[in-house]
Amino acid sequence: MREVCVVGVGMSQWGEIWRRSLRQLFVDAASDAIKSSGVDHLDGLYVGCMSSGLFVGQEHLGALMADYLGMRGLPACRVESACASGGMAVRSAFFEVASGASDIVMAAGVEKMTDCSGDDATYALATAADQEYEVFNGATFPGLYAMMAHAHMDRYGTTREMLSAVSVKNHKNGSMNPVAQYPFAITRETVENSVMVADPLRIMDCSPITDGAAAVIVTTEEIAKKLGKPYVKIIGSGVGTDTIQLCQRDDMTTIKAATIAFEKALKMSGKKLDDITFTEVHDCFTIAEIVVLESIGKYQPGEAGKAIVAGETALDGSFPVNTSGGLKSKGHPVGATGVAQVVEVYKQLTGQAEGDRQLKNSPKVGMAQNMGGSGASSVVHIMEVGS
Amino acid sequence: MREVCVVGVGMSQWGEIWRRSLRQLFVDAASDAIKSSGVDHLDGLYVGCMSSGLFVGQEHLGALMADYLGMRGLPACRVESACASGGMAVRSAFFEVASGASDIVMAAGVEKMTDCSGDDATYALATAADQEYEVFNGATFPGLYAMMAHAHMDRYGTTREMLSAVSVKNHKNGSMNPVAQYPFAITRETVENSVMVADPLRIMDCSPITDGAAAVIVTTEEIAKKLGKPYVKIIGSGVGTDTIQLCQRDDMTTIKAATIAFEKALKMSGKKLDDITFTEVHDCFTIAEIVVLESIGKYQPGEAGKAIVAGETALDGSFPVNTSGGLKSKGHPVGATGVAQVVEVYKQLTGQAEGDRQLKNSPKVGMAQNMGGSGASSVVHIMEVGS
Repeated sequence: MREVCVVGVGMSQWGEIWRRSLRQLFVDAASDAIKSSGVDHLDGLYVGCMSSGLFVGQEHLGALMADYLGMRGLPACRVESACASGGMAVRSAFFEVASGASDIVMAAGVEKMTDCSGDDATYALATAADQEYEVFNGATFPGLYAMMAHAHMDRYGTTREMLSAVSVKNHKNGSMNPVAQYPFAITRETVENSVMVADPLRIMDCSPITDGAAAVIVTTEEIAKKLGKPYVKIIGSGVGTDTIQLCQRDDMTTIKAATIAFEKALKMSGKKLDDITFTEVHDCFTIAEIVVLESIGKYQPGEAGKAIVAGETALDGSFPVNTSGGLKSKGHPVGATGVAQVVEVYKQLTGQAEGDRQLKNSPKVGMAQNMGGSGASSVVHIMEVGS
Repeated sequence: MREVCVVGVGMSQWGEIWRRSLRQLFVDAASDAIKSSGVDHLDGLYVGCMSSGLFVGQEHLGALMADYLGMRGLPACRVESACASGGMAVRSAFFEVASGASDIVMAAGVEKMTDCSGDDATYALATAADQEYEVFNGATFPGLYAMMAHAHMDRYGTTREMLSAVSVKNHKNGSMNPVAQYPFAITRETVENSVMVADPLRIMDCSPITDGAAAVIVTTEEIAKKLGKPYVKIIGSGVGTDTIQLCQRDDMTTIKAATIAFEKALKMSGKKLDDITFTEVHDCFTIAEIVVLESIGKYQPGEAGKAIVAGETALDGSFPVNTSGGLKSKGHPVGATGVAQVVEVYKQLTGQAEGDRQLKNSPKVGMAQNMGGSGASSVVHIMEVGS
């Protein structure tokens, strides 16, 4: 397998972006990635997108986006794994370059959620759950994650304070991210006085509905070196799945798909858990960040919440988590999130994270963990700074 | 790049299958493929599907299908390129095995179209066109292909008889395919007396709305040999795109995406056009078969229709096309079609095509050409019998 690198990254603005359509958001991020990498062409394009059919009545995004990027003819395809679609796009580009079939491939993600042409955004998102057994019975994602939160609280004594600490930390980090949807710090009181969505999850425990796009350029190490730009190596890529229905899992307080994805990525990377010094994780709800940090084995079950309250996962902690602001503050355009996580890890490893959120002590190995549905799928990428 | 093979194939029944849901159709085909290949596990799964969100309110098919196949944990992802989604799933599996990351990957495709939960199937399909510029102005696919047909008739003198000949030939082939939706022979009169859909295309020029699934097992040549089952090598894989809007193309009488995809696949294969002795092509409408055969350079512009009328593309002709019955007779569950084309090429190359549609003289190299939208994307695979 050839060494595969990320050599340039791009982001659109994230938020409620009324003046930019699905295709325009994509082009914003893609143009930015091409410019930052210095590549003069692409051999392929993967577009992560969860549900543009339901959100804006548009499928066939591969061809559409190649066209609007001004690259008629470019081999292009969309990949979908619910909210893990972006991570899967990166993985698809990784395989195409690793196989030797192509040298320069873009992995992008995009979602336009705030002017949903279908029923509503909650319905579109619910199609990531089991339509026949969960959705028809009224379950939507806040409800499913609320059940996970209650189970975790019941078994491990996880507290309201721990959930709040996730939101407060991620908003603090996001306040330094120029593309974030909600770039402002909040207090614990803000979280705990916010409106209840699905007990115990309040609105400030939930990632928002977001328009946005992200893109990265994936290439060989040889080309990355020639371009003379900072680059990072993708040293591990892993995917795991679990039952699509939450009620059928062996244990609601852990996400086995994330465990599997992490173990596969770690094995490919040849690294140990402790070699990874920071990570982006899929905090679609505050409880998800806690559960994922335990599912990858970074903390013992029941210990992640305490570590977050103690500041271990803060920017200046021993294991910074979601330096970008995470889904909570940066926003969560579902198909784009997984790519944006890779963008953040790239920026941190190459010293390009904006403002005071750049990690000190030049981190060498970082990780991005992306997740679909209530944890039925997960994709993990481990990246190392280019030498 | 490692040699990549197809070692087992599976199909569900195709048609208006009221008693089988989306997931059941997938499991029918996937179980069949696993059984026919003899593999004892999978390392990954790609599911080609165009628009399950709009058809049945269900996204996240990778995790869902791994789950219902009884393979919790299996890395799985959906890929989408409108009606070329199935071909793209095969290509994704091809890259994963070629890269060395995985040894045994399933590429499947599925669509459940006949009990659409959304507006209607025509709307869902139209999301493969440009929603903002074509669909909002009333264009749907019969209309777009009708414009291509008129342009082709005007420039090259293509006739009603030539369009009918495509339909008659494909129905004759499909009459020998046990999974086909419409497995019966028809006459030219049947086509020409059928109801008009979009002039000059009548209902018997159009592929139907279909429920169905198809699956193939993609692996290394070493494993294929060990399994002791018939296998074929995937020697070429190519993708091309063009403008998503038909009106923006350089020329409406050719499909450049197919030309690009074919040239890329041919280059990878190291073969010449004449080495390929039969093909499946994407006859979503009769005119499409004519245009594609010209776009890949098999016939000069304006010559394919005459060749079809002369019987050159019949089962006993010099270059059999759509031995399976094609989309017209076999049916067109849009996400499954590209995989089913690979199933047919596999069957023909390994002497397993049912009944009298098995080609004589042991063909050595065959091709599958899959297409999205009005030709905005195309994927081509060239396969050679295993030695």
